[in-house]
Amino acid sequence: MDEQQGRARRPGGRSARVRAAVHQAVTELVRERGYGNFAVGDIAARAGVADTSLYRRWGNLQALLSDVLLTRLNAQSPMPDTGSLAGDLRTHAANVAREVTGPDGLALVRLTLALSGEGQQGLQARDELLADRTRQLQAMLDRARGRGEDPPDVLEVLDHLLAPIYMRVLFGAGPLTPDYLDGLVDRLLA
Amino acid sequence: MDEQQGRARRPGGRSARVRAAVHQAVTELVRERGYGNFAVGDIAARAGVADTSLYRRWGNLQALLSDVLLTRLNAQSPMPDTGSLAGDLRTHAANVAREVTGPDGLALVRLTLALSGEGQQGLQARDELLADRTRQLQAMLDRARGRGEDPPDVLEVLDHLLAPIYMRVLFGAGPLTPDYLDGLVDRLLA
Repeated sequence: MDEQQGRARRPGGRSARVRAAVHQAVTELVRERGYGNFAVGDIAARAGVADTSLYRRWGNLQALLSDVLLTRLNAQSPMPDTGSLAGDLRTHAANVAREVTGPDGLALVRLTLALSGEGQQGLQARDELLADRTRQLQAMLDRARGRGEDPPDVLEVLDHLLAPIYMRVLFGAGPLTPDYLDGLVDRLLA
Repeated sequence: MDEQQGRARRPGGRSARVRAAVHQAVTELVRERGYGNFAVGDIAARAGVADTSLYRRWGNLQALLSDVLLTRLNAQSPMPDTGSLAGDLRTHAANVAREVTGPDGLALVRLTLALSGEGQQGLQARDELLADRTRQLQAMLDRARGRGEDPPDVLEVLDHLLAPIYMRVLFGAGPLTPDYLDGLVDRLLA
């Protein structure tokens, strides 16, 4: 798996081209049909590759969908490193808010929900996706501790910074203004 | 609409029987196919009533789905009235936690997401569903203020009590223990 991912990330190779075509195909299918309404065969046909090569590289549909979304999240909302805990949390909150209010902003919620209904493979793909983002968030908090700051734990960040942002968008409950977002950070650090 | 709802709630009449059959049909279709994968005609066929009578009573699919879920939420998680703000919030948190960890616990998230993608009728149905629950929560907080307590506002309850509960279930992030739930309430009231 590591060796395959290493190959996939080497720019310019066939592996990288397949990966890009597959990611594009998934993005389009999610937009057109929604999660749960297409299969590995649909992705393969649209990307112009064989089903078998997708199964070989990703193992199953759920792992493939998670990989696509994780790649996008990591590109669009990389964890910040501003030099201070408050700065990192404010920047992260602003990034997440920008992401979730975008055209496919609730993709993480949509995919997580879809995976929750797809048995063991679905739950495993969901957990790996979230574990990757959690590790990055943990590293950000660890850097703060290393500077002598007193960071909250990662679940407190989930509960009191990320959960309100997601829930307000999901429920259409008020705009995510900079003051509101900074207020969530202040409350978390109080 | 009020007069229709009044009729629908009168037990024993034809109207109440139709309502019960329609609610049962929706519950089954959601379980079998998921939101977004059935139409008013499917509900009518399963409930043994004419499409036209569903449109006459509910107006559209989105309003019908919202009504079914709201009826269930109000039956399973009625807003508590324990005589104290902390008691009400603890009881409400425990009720919501029981509901969301049940067999179709993420129904509110699923329906809200589905409605978000269905244009103006969908958004209106979503907003009416949430407005009804919000009014009940507001009434609970108003009772506390009337007793001389100092309640949080309704969006703070959404952000720091309900959002974490939903997000932890959605992300599979740790069990909703009584200590955890009471801790959310203590933090909200601190």
